[in-house]
Amino acid sequence: MVTDARDNAVLMLAHMNDEALSLTLETGFAHYYSRSRDTIWKKGETSGNLQKVEQILTDCDQDAILLKVSVAGHDAACHTGRRSCFYREVTAKDDAAALKSIDDHKAFDPKTVYGK
Amino acid sequence: MVTDARDNAVLMLAHMNDEALSLTLETGFAHYYSRSRDTIWKKGETSGNLQKVEQILTDCDQDAILLKVSVAGHDAACHTGRRSCFYREVTAKDDAAALKSIDDHKAFDPKTVYGK
Repeated sequence: MVTDARDNAVLMLAHMNDEALSLTLETGFAHYYSRSRDTIWKKGETSGNLQKVEQILTDCDQDAILLKVSVAGHDAACHTGRRSCFYREVTAKDDAAALKSIDDHKAFDPKTVYGK
Repeated sequence: MVTDARDNAVLMLAHMNDEALSLTLETGFAHYYSRSRDTIWKKGETSGNLQKVEQILTDCDQDAILLKVSVAGHDAACHTGRRSCFYREVTAKDDAAALKSIDDHKAFDPKTVYGK
């Protein structure tokens, strides 16, 4: 779990393995593990939106890590260009779940930044 | 991911399956799925620390849910009696990770509440 150290806003959720945690501790910048690609990735390596780690917490049963970070670059964590990946609200409507965007501001243009 | 709606403090991380999400949407109280016990659990059913859901968000790839909640009972989310499950800081020390508690206040006594 990743929050902004300034205001505790939740930015994103990603996986870590041992190597990702070690690299995060060693370098002071967030590294994650991609299960689909089976690779370590340094957050922001392409976009410039590096996450400088201000504090690392773990939970009661030690199977989760909370990173409090300062975001460089565009001050955004989401690949869609938004500050947070959690930009849509889930509501119950007619016995089904509906989604509503609560943040349409894009801090960067993904096409320009990622080239796709 | 669960945060306190008052101040965005991260309280805990738990799993949901379809049924847990449906029950959460229907009842307005947080339900989770225990992978180890293969059962749905309503948070706070034993302790009284129910989580009233104020807002539900989902992330960009829709594989994570963020619940913003108001906690009833002892105003605590952790089974250890603490407000948050994330009460220990991880620091790098002599090339190893060390843990340091940052919150020793217990809002309730787990032995009294859980009877074990």
